[in-house]
Amino acid sequence: MRIAMGYTLEQLSDLEEIRQLKARYFRCIDTGNEAELATLFTDDVTIDLKGGGYRLQVSGRDEMVEFIGSSFNSDVVAMHHGHTPEIAFSSPDEARGTWYLQDRFIDPVRNTDTVGSSLYYDTYRRTPDGWKIAASEYERVYEAVTPIDPAMSITAHLLARTGRPPERRADTSRWLTWHEDATND
Amino acid sequence: MRIAMGYTLEQLSDLEEIRQLKARYFRCIDTGNEAELATLFTDDVTIDLKGGGYRLQVSGRDEMVEFIGSSFNSDVVAMHHGHTPEIAFSSPDEARGTWYLQDRFIDPVRNTDTVGSSLYYDTYRRTPDGWKIAASEYERVYEAVTPIDPAMSITAHLLARTGRPPERRADTSRWLTWHEDATND
Amino acid sequence: MRIAMGYTLEQLSDLEEIRQLKARYFRCIDTGNEAELATLFTDDVTIDLKGGGYRLQVSGRDEMVEFIGSSFNSDVVAMHHGHTPEIAFSSPDEARGTWYLQDRFIDPVRNTDTVGSSLYYDTYRRTPDGWKIAASEYERVYEAVTPIDPAMSITAHLLARTGRPPERRADTSRWLTWHEDATND
Repeated sequence: MRIAMGYTLEQLSDLEEIRQLKARYFRCIDTGNEAELATLFTDDVTIDLKGGGYRLQVSGRDEMVEFIGSSFNSDVVAMHHGHTPEIAFSSPDEARGTWYLQDRFIDPVRNTDTVGSSLYYDTYRRTPDGWKIAASEYERVYEAVTPIDPAMSITAHLLARTGRPPERRADTSRWLTWHEDATND
Repeated sequence: MRIAMGYTLEQLSDLEEIRQLKARYFRCIDTGNEAELATLFTDDVTIDLKGGGYRLQVSGRDEMVEFIGSSFNSDVVAMHHGHTPEIAFSSPDEARGTWYLQDRFIDPVRNTDTVGSSLYYDTYRRTPDGWKIAASEYERVYEAVTPIDPAMSITAHLLARTGRPPERRADTSRWLTWHEDATND
Repeated sequence: MRIAMGYTLEQLSDLEEIRQLKARYFRCIDTGNEAELATLFTDDVTIDLKGGGYRLQVSGRDEMVEFIGSSFNSDVVAMHHGHTPEIAFSSPDEARGTWYLQDRFIDPVRNTDTVGSSLYYDTYRRTPDGWKIAASEYERVYEAVTPIDPAMSITAHLLARTGRPPERRADTSRWLTWHEDATND
């Protein structure tokens, strides 16, 4: 009944490093920590995230940090919780990972409170400076948008202090495409 | 101060395999992936889930896949996020695991939006084909049901494309019992 | 391209023990399990949690159990889900850990439904009886409070059975300070 194969010590160690890499990704987005965020990607990272009404495509670390800093700015509340990583090695120095995201995005400018779940499909690459995110895609499992409840009080809001103020934000429209028929993509 | 005992390499490897097994379980439910779901259980799996107003009891892998496919169908939004596994070995080829679930179930037919948390108590068994779920129970920590907010737009809905259409759904009532006094079970 | 350093088997084993330690912490709070909760802390644990409108400061295991049992009592619904641990060793017998919390607290006495996210910054210490929580702080990423939706039915509520009834609750005000300007702390 015993299976001979299993993870090696090095693989288990790598899995832990990759899990902590992605943990930092989520934490840095929601806390406006762009300096640490920049350390998580390869130079040539490619991003392709398919949301409910949008598609985000970004190439390169600097652009990705610029996008995240400008989108998850001092006006909005961002919550990205990543769960149940399924990571497998495609080579000794490359791994693929699926994460199940739960997120919330409260945008008072658009008066939208967006919640949902997505499946991330990542590629991680070992570099001399540790494991990095080399590619990241996601597809939405569900997304629901409501107007912000006027009875809701925001009683803590870290990004209000740490997120980019209006004058430091890039125009993110170059990375985004919008589509009409969101439920039947 | 040092403790002699700890996990062995094989145990740490097994823990990783079991975590990824349960990760696939949650992902397959929410994406309508019945083919992969069928690979996660032993033939003789037993299920006993105690919800707010319901109790689900299923025996056998085929029945479980039939139940899940018919319940998490193209009409509904399903979200199952599993957290903080506490897994311990009861023998070299068997393990027990507790997972803390957060879930949401939006059912437009009943006009209910159900959210909650549960504690899963699982048994995993090593087979020639890897670790499988041999038994699974849960108890509800809390559950809250509201009518679906008419101001909410569902802007992404994967199960609408991948879930079972009405003509392929089994009658799930044989596996479910309902009780009145949900808060005092 | 290969990195020489990685986690040792003992470190990976310790990381697993620490993850399960914190898993028990969340589970015990939400299920009113004070007996098991008391086993998770060092005698001299220090707690400093900065919420939206409150700051909780507690010293010592007995006081912490008293606080949790009295706060997460039979009247309220409590949900604490911990995610994406980032744990690093500061010495062979001490580790620091960051966890990303998602929580909900439904308090019918105050008529508040509070949801939010926090970043825990913990210190864990190895003892002859296993790893324990020696210190724990958190800062809020966001917190949102709404009156309880009158259309919401609580259809399962474990703490109603397991949480402290009014006559066994301590006065928690000695551990809490309240501040006015919650969004600009």
